[in-house]
Amino acid sequence: MSERAFAQVALIGLGLMGSSLAQAIAAHLPGVQVTGYDASPEVRARAAELSLADIRHDPADAVAGADLIILCVPVGAMAAAARALSPGLSLDAIVSDVGSSKQSVAEALAEALPGHTVIPAHPVSGTERSGPDAGFASLFHNRWCILTPPANADSAEVDRLAAFWRALGANVETMDPAHHDLVLAITSHLPHLIAYTIVGTASDLEQVTRGEVIKYSAGGFRDFTRIAASDPVMWRDVFLSNKDAVLEMLQRFTEDLTALQRAIRWDDGEALFELFSKTRAIRRSIIAEGQDDARPDFGRADHGD
Amino acid sequence: MSERAFAQVALIGLGLMGSSLAQAIAAHLPGVQVTGYDASPEVRARAAELSLADIRHDPADAVAGADLIILCVPVGAMAAAARALSPGLSLDAIVSDVGSSKQSVAEALAEALPGHTVIPAHPVSGTERSGPDAGFASLFHNRWCILTPPANADSAEVDRLAAFWRALGANVETMDPAHHDLVLAITSHLPHLIAYTIVGTASDLEQVTRGEVIKYSAGGFRDFTRIAASDPVMWRDVFLSNKDAVLEMLQRFTEDLTALQRAIRWDDGEALFELFSKTRAIRRSIIAEGQDDARPDFGRADHGD
Repeated sequence: MSERAFAQVALIGLGLMGSSLAQAIAAHLPGVQVTGYDASPEVRARAAELSLADIRHDPADAVAGADLIILCVPVGAMAAAARALSPGLSLDAIVSDVGSSKQSVAEALAEALPGHTVIPAHPVSGTERSGPDAGFASLFHNRWCILTPPANADSAEVDRLAAFWRALGANVETMDPAHHDLVLAITSHLPHLIAYTIVGTASDLEQVTRGEVIKYSAGGFRDFTRIAASDPVMWRDVFLSNKDAVLEMLQRFTEDLTALQRAIRWDDGEALFELFSKTRAIRRSIIAEGQDDARPDFGRADHGD
Repeated sequence: MSERAFAQVALIGLGLMGSSLAQAIAAHLPGVQVTGYDASPEVRARAAELSLADIRHDPADAVAGADLIILCVPVGAMAAAARALSPGLSLDAIVSDVGSSKQSVAEALAEALPGHTVIPAHPVSGTERSGPDAGFASLFHNRWCILTPPANADSAEVDRLAAFWRALGANVETMDPAHHDLVLAITSHLPHLIAYTIVGTASDLEQVTRGEVIKYSAGGFRDFTRIAASDPVMWRDVFLSNKDAVLEMLQRFTEDLTALQRAIRWDDGEALFELFSKTRAIRRSIIAEGQDDARPDFGRADHGD
């Protein structure tokens, strides 16, 4: 990094993201000191057992001396977490986060930390697991991290944060927070909402038992259960904090689904075939750009061999 | 197998399913002769190159002497395929299939092959790939194969077919065809319909570019692109042949989605949290029953390590 490196990174929240950041920093930036805090005493204890970071029992203490603070808490908890750490915050530190919606986080952090440098970020990366044990060092490899700096941000500070993420293996893009929220509404938030919905629908049927849903899930349903196993608090906050963009994308999806429903009802095989033919290309592009596993069935190893 | 083994199996259709069946028979039932036919000359030529089976250029010739015939064609092509092979069919042969909907296939085959023994079947197993090169011998390992014998079926013949599927590594269940179609509507057909829809919705946006959808697909969207890359003809036929059950499940899904949409609009975090909390358990059960990969993110190897 030609940019000025960070000497101490404070991680606030030590679940999947905080734990992965701690391990990625240890792997890629071994000279950087990492302090950490989580609101849960159990998570702090586990993080200490895993030697993820120098764990502190007070957020203001965790950020003392840090030149980069990364908030890894649900987006609805950002404001309270920022207020709690502010007594220990240096004026020359950069405050960032990993939240999945950016307009509301930018506003919450700016309001909670007046006079401080806030550069929100979103690494588009994760798994369905939660908690400190779910983290791993390569979570950000070849994934995109989107920075949404405010209009008046110092470009040298933005470059410093970008260099940090690149050092962890990520690709970095800069975006307006409103555009981020629209893009993620379709690439992440709506997929999660739909997955949660269909798993709920399948759980509530009278004519088909839960045992049947499980046994025959390899027909496609099981794919949806993975993202529907994601952290409930995190996702509740995402939908509440990115309401307008999610509702806009949901409206478009519902229109398209209604059109397909009508095609099925009226035996319009041509309309079905036309849609089903055009959706193959996008997967090929995703694989070509290294954003998914090229092997069939995601390379799942569940055929007993 | 204590049941009388089959001496010659004829596979009609040599795509993912026919090719996998040929390879599974070679691996698990090496004494069984396998003949094959596909309506496409290119597929026949490729199947011959791959030595999948003794390839014939006429369906009646392919089934001559066979005591088990398995139709591996799209469900809308079953009747025509059955009529085409019927001149070569022995009266003591069992005719079966691998179609994803069962009421319409049972009717089509019974009508096309009067006086013959028809026992429809559906191995709940597959990948997003198509064609003879996509097949592999372990496709049916630890997957469920559902037999839907007609009410007057000879139980010894049903047992023979069940033993055949078990020899290929599958678990076997017997079910009424109408119930099969309802169960698969929720575990397979609706998931495919939703995946095709959201991939279509994402492709048609003006505010978000196709490049952005691809770059940030790791947020969840990429999961849906896998099943939306499935064979368009096969899936067109599934929706047209299982219309009533698909429309019923789609109606329930839409109601549930509308309820969630309302919860988001009215900031009802409790309703969101409640649903998102209950959907985790079903994935644990699917993994416990060996129907999905237990590793995070399906065990995808795309983090560059």
